Amino acid sequence: MTRRTPAIRLEVTPDGVRSTARPDTLAVEEPLEIRVGGTSVTVTMRTPGDDFDLALGNLLTEGVLRRGDDVAQLMHCLDEDESGSPTYNVVDVTLAPGVVPDLDRSARSGYQSSACGVCGKTSIDAITATSPYAVSDDPVALSPVVLAGLPDAMRASQKVFEKTGGLHAAALFTTGGELLVVREDVGRHNAVDKVVGWAAREGRLPLTGHVLVVSGRASFELVQKAVMAGVPALVAVSAPSSLAAELAEESGLTLVGFARSPRLTVYAGAHRLGL
Amino acid sequence: MTRRTPAIRLEVTPDGVRSTARPDTLAVEEPLEIRVGGTSVTVTMRTPGDDFDLALGNLLTEGVLRRGDDVAQLMHCLDEDESGSPTYNVVDVTLAPGVVPDLDRSARSGYQSSACGVCGKTSIDAITATSPYAVSDDPVALSPVVLAGLPDAMRASQKVFEKTGGLHAAALFTTGGELLVVREDVGRHNAVDKVVGWAAREGRLPLTGHVLVVSGRASFELVQKAVMAGVPALVAVSAPSSLAAELAEESGLTLVGFARSPRLTVYAGAHRLGL
Repeated sequence: MTRRTPAIRLEVTPDGVRSTARPDTLAVEEPLEIRVGGTSVTVTMRTPGDDFDLALGNLLTEGVLRRGDDVAQLMHCLDEDESGSPTYNVVDVTLAPGVVPDLDRSARSGYQSSACGVCGKTSIDAITATSPYAVSDDPVALSPVVLAGLPDAMRASQKVFEKTGGLHAAALFTTGGELLVVREDVGRHNAVDKVVGWAAREGRLPLTGHVLVVSGRASFELVQKAVMAGVPALVAVSAPSSLAAELAEESGLTLVGFARSPRLTVYAGAHRLGL
Repeated sequence: MTRRTPAIRLEVTPDGVRSTARPDTLAVEEPLEIRVGGTSVTVTMRTPGDDFDLALGNLLTEGVLRRGDDVAQLMHCLDEDESGSPTYNVVDVTLAPGVVPDLDRSARSGYQSSACGVCGKTSIDAITATSPYAVSDDPVALSPVVLAGLPDAMRASQKVFEKTGGLHAAALFTTGGELLVVREDVGRHNAVDKVVGWAAREGRLPLTGHVLVVSGRASFELVQKAVMAGVPALVAVSAPSSLAAELAEESGLTLVGFARSPRLTVYAGAHRLGL
């Protein structure tokens, strides 16, 4: 997940500029193409690792597939690069008999389908109608004390971030604060897809009664993916966007931002925290 | 660019949980659809404002158009939402006579074209061959002292970040450290496109002899956009990815990361800093 690269560190001092040439450790970013039955569905810039989970999670959270067992088989196509080496940058998904993918919903077709009419309101309606799960029905109760501690718990289990400073993370917790899985990626949306794909393979969808935690900010896209996975609560370390808060409110998702122990801010679904 | 939203701030204390209900200011995120001659080319989740610059910059940095004067007119299509109000979320671009857009390169077709073969190496070859400008030829000399101060200068001129904590920024500087333009957006790639679109309208492309600064991390996509705009140096506040460093090296772009005065790290094109 990391690669050593030549780098020169500079420090500006009153006496001039000090330079030190020393290899640096960077987070790996490479394209992954996801195919369904040989047809290219999307390409995402991701950090290699857990590619099958990423592919499965992406297809589920984008609405191309509905259930984990829509998939019969996941395999790497060993496309070769110019030097004749396999790239491992293509995953082909074989569907179970009778499953018809909704390819109009793929990332390749952009937000065309989910943002039909290209207006926030309409896109919210479209996505809430599309999720196979109703997170608003999830009666789970959440403890502010537990939620405030989750980002630190996630960070403590991130393996690569400290080395590179360049990786986002997503993690799944129980309401008691038990960490189930953590995934890292240069793309926050990919880290979430890796978590959801893991959960799908484990037969845990919908993620009723769980909490999804993400490093950094909460965008519309992340709330959309949470709702598609049926998780009732999304906790972000930084700010949500306006559309993230609106979609959370309309979907019945509990959205927490600026979760930095001992503080957090609740933007939607406060009833689950007894507020 | 911001919207007030209901929020509840919580603080976990030894005596229990203190809660304060108080509206919070969030960065606005809404979809923008970019059309060329009525044909939908891409949809991006963006912060409204400078939409024409965003549309123009996006088409140029994605390689759909080659020059700023490929465009004859930019206008909002006043599509209506469900309540009959105009959404201002669609920009239609009318091309100058004889201009043929390269629609295969649009974001809608994903990285299909730019990452042909879906291998890092090939994608780099594709993009370096595609840019109308050769940044490697730019003889500009850069001062480490000036570069180290640019992120603070950008932050000081960001209007919205302090209010929301939720906006990325991109800014264009002269090599002497003079700020020419700064743009904010929920998407870092959109902030860069707004800067490039501004430069195109001002007749400043290619951005020879300039420095582009971005908040946060430097991905492959941002380096690609910099190269497409002909800017010889990209300075990021946080870490670059492996592919960002590789593309910068192969393109002859100077890539600086972790630019936090008085320190910075140079990942490519160090010769411009006299190293």
